[in-house]
Amino acid sequence: MLVYNKHYRTIWEKPNDNSTIQIIDQRYLPHSFIIDNLKTVKQFIYAISEMQLRGAPLIGAAAAYAMYIATLEAQKYDNYFSQIENFAEELIISRPTAINLRWAVEKQLKAIKGLSNYEDIIAAALQTARQIADDDVEQCRKIGNFGFDIIKKLSEKKQGQEINILTHCNAGWLATVDYGTATAPIYEAQKQGIKVHVWVDETRPRNQGAKLTAWELWQQSVPHTVIADNTGGHLMQHNMVDMVIVGTDRTTITGDVANKIGTYLKALAAYDNNVPFYVAVPSSSIDWTIEDGVKEIPIEQRDMDEVKYVDGLCEDKIKNVLVPPYESPAANYGFDVTPARLITGLITERGICKPEKEGILRLFPEKR
Amino acid sequence: MLVYNKHYRTIWEKPNDNSTIQIIDQRYLPHSFIIDNLKTVKQFIYAISEMQLRGAPLIGAAAAYAMYIATLEAQKYDNYFSQIENFAEELIISRPTAINLRWAVEKQLKAIKGLSNYEDIIAAALQTARQIADDDVEQCRKIGNFGFDIIKKLSEKKQGQEINILTHCNAGWLATVDYGTATAPIYEAQKQGIKVHVWVDETRPRNQGAKLTAWELWQQSVPHTVIADNTGGHLMQHNMVDMVIVGTDRTTITGDVANKIGTYLKALAAYDNNVPFYVAVPSSSIDWTIEDGVKEIPIEQRDMDEVKYVDGLCEDKIKNVLVPPYESPAANYGFDVTPARLITGLITERGICKPEKEGILRLFPEKR
Repeated sequence: MLVYNKHYRTIWEKPNDNSTIQIIDQRYLPHSFIIDNLKTVKQFIYAISEMQLRGAPLIGAAAAYAMYIATLEAQKYDNYFSQIENFAEELIISRPTAINLRWAVEKQLKAIKGLSNYEDIIAAALQTARQIADDDVEQCRKIGNFGFDIIKKLSEKKQGQEINILTHCNAGWLATVDYGTATAPIYEAQKQGIKVHVWVDETRPRNQGAKLTAWELWQQSVPHTVIADNTGGHLMQHNMVDMVIVGTDRTTITGDVANKIGTYLKALAAYDNNVPFYVAVPSSSIDWTIEDGVKEIPIEQRDMDEVKYVDGLCEDKIKNVLVPPYESPAANYGFDVTPARLITGLITERGICKPEKEGILRLFPEKR
Repeated sequence: MLVYNKHYRTIWEKPNDNSTIQIIDQRYLPHSFIIDNLKTVKQFIYAISEMQLRGAPLIGAAAAYAMYIATLEAQKYDNYFSQIENFAEELIISRPTAINLRWAVEKQLKAIKGLSNYEDIIAAALQTARQIADDDVEQCRKIGNFGFDIIKKLSEKKQGQEINILTHCNAGWLATVDYGTATAPIYEAQKQGIKVHVWVDETRPRNQGAKLTAWELWQQSVPHTVIADNTGGHLMQHNMVDMVIVGTDRTTITGDVANKIGTYLKALAAYDNNVPFYVAVPSSSIDWTIEDGVKEIPIEQRDMDEVKYVDGLCEDKIKNVLVPPYESPAANYGFDVTPARLITGLITERGICKPEKEGILRLFPEKR
C-alpha cells in the first residue's frame, strides 16, 4: 500500500543484495518511517519479539525469510543441519501465540527436507519465503474481495450512506505483507467508491490501532476516527457502527478467535446490539488441532512496563511517559479469545463461513 | 483517607479562612500532590470542567461549596439575588452528565430561599455545604458497610482466599469527600482483615484508574494491579475476577447506570461469565425522572486531544505525548450507559437492591 504515495510491502529483499531482508520498523510509526536491515536470525528474533514487525501473517512471512537467512547463516557452523533446526526452535518460541510463526518455520523445514547440497537448500528456502510472501498478498486480496461483498450489501441497505466499520488493533497491511486482512475489504470498498468510515480502537497497551491502523488509513486517505477502546459499546448502542471487522492471531477449527486483548469485549457489545462481527482469517491462522480456544490457546503475558509507560511524540522526539504510580504493579495479557458463538462470520481466502467446524471444513475440505 | 500517612478529605475549608476552599488538584496525581485554593465561582467552574476535581459525589460537594462562595461573591454585584442565580446556572452547565451538580446547586437555592439578609444567606449556604460534605462521608461509610457484606460472603465461599475485585475509573475516595463509593467496601474489607486484590482498569482516555485509583490503593496499602481496559474480559473468562464494583455518574430510577465510558463493556463481560457486577450508588446520583438510560441520559463529548495525547511522568516532569498521527481525528465520549439487565445489584446508603424501579423505591419510599 501507499506510504507518502509510494508503494511498499512490509517485508522485501534488499535490491541487489538478497542476503539482507528489509522491513518497515513499526515501532517508530506513525511518527517516523524507518526501514531496517535484517541479516541474521538473531535480528529476526529480536524484530519479532520486540515487535519491530508484528501481525500474524507478517510474522509468518518474516519467519519464512528468517529461515532462509538461517540457511545462509548456518554455513558458519560445523553442523549445518542441526544448526538450522536450532534456529527453527528459537524462532518458534519468540512469540508464543502466533500460529503463523510455527506454520512458516515448519513449511520451510519441509521445503528443504531431503536436500543435501547447501546451494539447493538456500535456493529452496528463498523460493519458499518468496512464495509465502506472495501467497499472503494473494490471500489478503481474496479476503478483501469476499469482505467487500459484505460492505457492499450494507451500503445498498443504507442506500449509499457511509458505512461505519469498527476495528481493533492493526490487522491492516502493516500486519501482513500487503493489503491487510481486516482492512482489505475496506480498501476494496474505497477503491470501488463505497463510502466508508473506520472507528479505530486505539488498542491499549501498545496502541497499534492509534499508531498503525490510523497511520495506514491516513496514508490511504480513508476517513477514520481514533477512539479509546472503551468507546465501541456506546457507539454500538447508538447505531453508530454498521459492522466490526478484526483480524486474528489464531483461530480454532471450531471458530474461536484469539486476537489482541479486548477483542472479546467488542464481540460481546456487537452481539448485544445486533452488529455483525466478522473476523478476517487467512487459513494460515487456523489451528486445525484445537477445539476450545478459551481453554487451550496459551495467552502471552508481556512486560508490565508496556501498560505503565506510553510512548509518543513530544517536542519532536519520541518520549516515554509513566502513567500510574511507579510503585503500582501492572499485568499485561496480550490476547484474549472470542468464543465462536459471538461471531457472525469468518472471512477466509476461500470465502465466508460460519464460525464452526463444519463451515470451516467445507471451505478447506483437505483438512478433514 | 491517607496521603503519605496523614488523613485528608478531598475538599475542606482553609483553616482560619473559610472564604477559601481547598481541594486536592487531581490533575497532578499520582506524580505530584498539590493543594489548590478556590476563592471564586469562576475558579470552581474551572476546577469542575477541567477536572481538577471529579467524581459525581465530590462534584456535588464542590458545587455546594461553590454556591456558598457565590453567596459571598455576589455581594460585589448590584443585584445580589439574580447574580446568585446566574452563578447557579453557570455551575449547572459545567459538566452536563453529573446529576449531583444540579442536585447540590438546587439544594443550596432551596436552603437560601426566603432569606433576605446577606449574612443569613451566607451562613445558610455554608451550613448546607458542610452538611452535604458530611452527608457524603456518611453515605460512603454506609455503602462501605453494605458492600462489605458482599465481599465477606465471597471470602467465606472461597474459604478466606484472596477476593479479586475489578473496578473501572475512579469511584474511590478521590471521587467523593472521603472513603469513596466503589472503594468503600474494599477499604472496609481491608480494615476487617479480609484478603482483597483490586484489578484497576486504567480507564482511557483520562486514565483515572491508573492515576487515581492505583494511587489511592497504593497510599492505603491495598494490593492491586493496573490493567489495560481491554483486559477484564480475559480475566473473567479465566475466573480471575470474583466481583466487579463501579461507581456511577447518574443512575435512572429503573437501574440503568451511566458511568465512565467502557463500564458497559465490563458489565457485558461480567454477565457473560457469571461474575457479580455491583454499582455503588449514593442516592444523590439517582435521577428519579428518567426511565431509559440509554435513550435519555445525555453523554458528554470532550476534547479529542484527551484521546490523542497521554500525559505522564518523563524525566521528573509531566509531559504530554502524541500517540496517533497528528492528522488523524479522534472522538471522545465521556460516559456510557449500562442497562439494568446486566447489573447484579445497586449498593446504596440504605442497603442493596436489584436494579429496578420497585427495588429502588422500596429503599427510598419517599420518592414514590
